[in-house]
Amino acid sequence: MNTLIKNAIVLLPDGTTPVANIAVIDDRIAAVGDVPENFQADKVIDGTQHFAIPGFVNAHTHASMTLLRSYADDMKLMDWLEQMIWPIEAKLRSDDIYWGAMLAAVEMIRSGTTAFADMYGPDMERVAEVVEVSGLRGVLSRGLIGVAPDSDKKLEENAALYENYHGAAQGRITVMFGPHALYTCPPDYLKKIAAKAQALGAEVHIHMSETVGEIENCLKEYGKRPFAHVASTGLFENGTLAAHCVHLDDEDIDIIKKYQIRVAHNPGSNMKLASGTAPVPRLLEEGICVALGTDGASSNNNLDMLDEVQLAALMHKVHTLDPLAVPALTAVKMGTEYGAQALSLRDVGRLQAGDKADIVLFSMHGAAWTPCYNPVSLLAYAAKSSSVDAVMVDGKLLMENGALTTLDEEHILFEAQKVADRLTK
Amino acid sequence: MNTLIKNAIVLLPDGTTPVANIAVIDDRIAAVGDVPENFQADKVIDGTQHFAIPGFVNAHTHASMTLLRSYADDMKLMDWLEQMIWPIEAKLRSDDIYWGAMLAAVEMIRSGTTAFADMYGPDMERVAEVVEVSGLRGVLSRGLIGVAPDSDKKLEENAALYENYHGAAQGRITVMFGPHALYTCPPDYLKKIAAKAQALGAEVHIHMSETVGEIENCLKEYGKRPFAHVASTGLFENGTLAAHCVHLDDEDIDIIKKYQIRVAHNPGSNMKLASGTAPVPRLLEEGICVALGTDGASSNNNLDMLDEVQLAALMHKVHTLDPLAVPALTAVKMGTEYGAQALSLRDVGRLQAGDKADIVLFSMHGAAWTPCYNPVSLLAYAAKSSSVDAVMVDGKLLMENGALTTLDEEHILFEAQKVADRLTK
Repeated sequence: MNTLIKNAIVLLPDGTTPVANIAVIDDRIAAVGDVPENFQADKVIDGTQHFAIPGFVNAHTHASMTLLRSYADDMKLMDWLEQMIWPIEAKLRSDDIYWGAMLAAVEMIRSGTTAFADMYGPDMERVAEVVEVSGLRGVLSRGLIGVAPDSDKKLEENAALYENYHGAAQGRITVMFGPHALYTCPPDYLKKIAAKAQALGAEVHIHMSETVGEIENCLKEYGKRPFAHVASTGLFENGTLAAHCVHLDDEDIDIIKKYQIRVAHNPGSNMKLASGTAPVPRLLEEGICVALGTDGASSNNNLDMLDEVQLAALMHKVHTLDPLAVPALTAVKMGTEYGAQALSLRDVGRLQAGDKADIVLFSMHGAAWTPCYNPVSLLAYAAKSSSVDAVMVDGKLLMENGALTTLDEEHILFEAQKVADRLTK
Repeated sequence: MNTLIKNAIVLLPDGTTPVANIAVIDDRIAAVGDVPENFQADKVIDGTQHFAIPGFVNAHTHASMTLLRSYADDMKLMDWLEQMIWPIEAKLRSDDIYWGAMLAAVEMIRSGTTAFADMYGPDMERVAEVVEVSGLRGVLSRGLIGVAPDSDKKLEENAALYENYHGAAQGRITVMFGPHALYTCPPDYLKKIAAKAQALGAEVHIHMSETVGEIENCLKEYGKRPFAHVASTGLFENGTLAAHCVHLDDEDIDIIKKYQIRVAHNPGSNMKLASGTAPVPRLLEEGICVALGTDGASSNNNLDMLDEVQLAALMHKVHTLDPLAVPALTAVKMGTEYGAQALSLRDVGRLQAGDKADIVLFSMHGAAWTPCYNPVSLLAYAAKSSSVDAVMVDGKLLMENGALTTLDEEHILFEAQKVADRLTK
């Protein structure tokens, strides 16, 4: 199928924003700008007064936790986890995982996200189902807790997920291993995961250095800071997506560089949970890949990647007292191109010939986009995800003229509320 | 005219959110909850699956600067002002002030703002026109720069604005004096303003203690910190709305309490300009009225008060490393009830019998509001202003079913872009 997006303002990889056409053949961008004269479009999308950007990549989330959105807020972390989140999570059934991920898919597509890295479980194959039917791109990992009695079973589930789904849905699904964190995974368990991942050639998605307490406890227990400790288990050998990375020193940064670890920065979650401010300007200066994630909807409380782009652009300015920190284009790239790199998505994240056609069109009609001197700046500082008008993944439209094309939104909202009613009955 | 809002989830002043009816007679709320049996509604609004809250109060903005939205971003403050903002502001005509404020009115109504405190000029009577026709509530002040050659003329303009417009538009317009800041207004000029305000019984709207540089220069020049210095001119005697208040010590806070100064906190602007983090939790503990403002659209870059509510709820948590700082209800009250107090708006800011009918209805349909365990938390942490469905000021609908009723939105967007094209030609 050939699609032509006509006369959009297009964000090119170099940050310029010319008015241009985008030709899509099947799942890939055939041309941006000069469309071949013989290009025959099956479908033409009028891009006039629209801003075309690469789809947002949510580099760290727990999709099914949308079911717990605003179930418990304004609490201390351990009170929140022990009194509220864990008891209700214990009631989750396989179908709940599915409807929670479906709700997440609705929210992500509506706000311009085309790919996401998910860590949750059990029943991650239900999330794979959601990726399959929604048309999104998903990097799935089964959350692994080593301190639980069924830790080996969890690891087997993650391995089975890899074997059954890595490369599935025409390549839209990839699988990583999901060790939750060093404080829930003892060293021997991390070593087991590392060996299994190595054997399968799988990468790893893990929470790292999120809170001060995590660093202190790691030092106390293992005599090393988190990155040195986890590196010693071999877990970083095969490619790593590390979420949070809030509290880092020079040695940590050296280890991140040595293993080419990609960082998923979660500004909204780090602010809401009062975790701290990650040294993002420094990481970017060091050439480290820094992507953006929403984290789960119970610590955010939405899956809106444009919020994260905007928070990333704002929070580091005030933290460093430098108004030039994380400028608009950098923040947008963190939410798109760098996100695709962080998730090891090949040929994704840039609007250029040969890349996958993962494209979002923002309507630039309305006050927040008026007047228009600089579309990138408007996107990073003024716009709302509600102006997302069309979303394409692999050349297929998941949303067109503001309506979802692959999912039954009303049904999903209904089922999600029904699950919530049962969980809190 | 009698209006009945039926079966909405209503945010009451005590923070509870029952399903209730709201009866409106003319410009006031007649009842919330038990509507008198003999109440005859001329109009009934179905509030089912809607969240009714008091309208947002934007406690500090420069409305016409919407024309400069994203004209210049990611620059150092003085480069930004001297190279970009001041040269383009010098080209502004009276009609531009009007269309800029019209664009602001569209944006504010659409995002649920019912009242705003504006400081700008010249030609603030053009902003008064916008308040008149839009149906919004406006607290207008003419920006006063004492270091300019026409500083006395400016003061006369502010006095004329007060005499001609204070209490106009059925009381929806009130006027304050607008000394820009201590670093643009020498002490003698502040004294003149204080005397004039005192003579007329007018309050004052001023930028205070926004940057570290302002404090340092004030200490160098006057041997006092900003609050002590301005207090010595008599400016605080008649009621003061102080924007920013980022850098405060104990003495400053004592002065704020002594003069019952109301603080307009601008989280988005303070983050973007890297001004710093105001000690909001401390101010609230001290019983000081802390409201929220967007500041101008060139340092924000929108006029979306829900963004400010959300940023206020987030930025102080991460700054203090306390996840309980500025909880959801407090942030919402800062954006509504405390804002009305800060602007000296009588009987505004709470949904209760006898108060002015300034009401916003959010549609709770959609993923960001699903599931619904806690509407206040969803509003503060998950929702978007795009779910604002209806806006009422003084009992009159300014927006209904997502459409503006008092303003010609398409015409305004067109004229605003035309001004921008001329300014940058």
